[in-house]
Amino acid sequence: MSTTNSLDVLIQALRRLPGVGVKSAQRMAFHLLQHDREGALALSRALSEAVGTVHHCARCHTFTEAEVCSTCLDPERDATRLCVVETPADQSAMERTGAFKGLYFVLMGRLSPLDGVGPKDIGLQKLMERATGGEVQEVILATNFNAEGEATAHVISEALKSRGVHVTRLARGVPVGSELEYVDLGTIAHALVDRR
Amino acid sequence: MSTTNSLDVLIQALRRLPGVGVKSAQRMAFHLLQHDREGALALSRALSEAVGTVHHCARCHTFTEAEVCSTCLDPERDATRLCVVETPADQSAMERTGAFKGLYFVLMGRLSPLDGVGPKDIGLQKLMERATGGEVQEVILATNFNAEGEATAHVISEALKSRGVHVTRLARGVPVGSELEYVDLGTIAHALVDRR
Repeated sequence: MSTTNSLDVLIQALRRLPGVGVKSAQRMAFHLLQHDREGALALSRALSEAVGTVHHCARCHTFTEAEVCSTCLDPERDATRLCVVETPADQSAMERTGAFKGLYFVLMGRLSPLDGVGPKDIGLQKLMERATGGEVQEVILATNFNAEGEATAHVISEALKSRGVHVTRLARGVPVGSELEYVDLGTIAHALVDRR
Repeated sequence: MSTTNSLDVLIQALRRLPGVGVKSAQRMAFHLLQHDREGALALSRALSEAVGTVHHCARCHTFTEAEVCSTCLDPERDATRLCVVETPADQSAMERTGAFKGLYFVLMGRLSPLDGVGPKDIGLQKLMERATGGEVQEVILATNFNAEGEATAHVISEALKSRGVHVTRLARGVPVGSELEYVDLGTIAHALVDRR
């Protein structure tokens, strides 16, 4: 694109962002340098700041700047229920429902043998220790409802059940507000099996 | 999403990239912190480096780290032909054709009164001086073939013609390799008018 080395380096660096190809990276670099140099510097600072200060909560593995995150430290939360989610974004979605007052364990990923993500990468051992520590009475699996999320839930469920832990899974069913005609058949079939 | 301030700041900073909304920004921040902290630091450095060193070429306005870019300094180029493009990416596309050996003038934008982009923002005055300086015999307008690009070409063309400069525009027509059946009608109509 250019005769400048710094610009090429910037474009290559932007391509490391997920979902950003060479055209998008060029467009981003061009936009920042032409119209928003302040934004470029703000992003530069935010990146180095976040890399320097953000790490994982010692108890639930979510991102935090403290040793233990504020959710884990909250004395109001019900420590007998432990909700297992894949990412901090999933945790955030659960929180926004306002329907769960227990604690979390964030896998920071999902089992994906083809990508080389095994039980160790999602902290399975630590989850086992936490779930069998005596305080937790129920583990609620809230991994995603796609193939990898279901496989992850299955593996965790088997491991926990063999240790006598009470394990539940979020209900599969017809989304609120939807019309049957437009719901996919697999969902309807599952909703029929799980009818109550 | 989180209990960490640095992470929120990073997500807000990523949203300043064009085409990145809150979900994408969360995904990018999560990816960088979980899987590619080295990439995050590389991007941080590339951003501050580029903001510090990249500016506009004194002659053609493209991005460069030197006072004048290497294309403008190249003694092999034909200084009698000046190609006007909107962005460095467009310049790069022209270069990759290998069909143009002249010099460039990069507008770094396009006329867009509704967005507050006027003749001054695209360096029209400087283009006039360059085109009427004596060396340039032909100005080739290679702005985009959308509404704003056409309007920009029209304004530049009128201004240059009134000063007696020979102005040409890239040909409009049927793209190479296409079948008439699938080409839009406006393009076919223009190709018919401009037949040779």
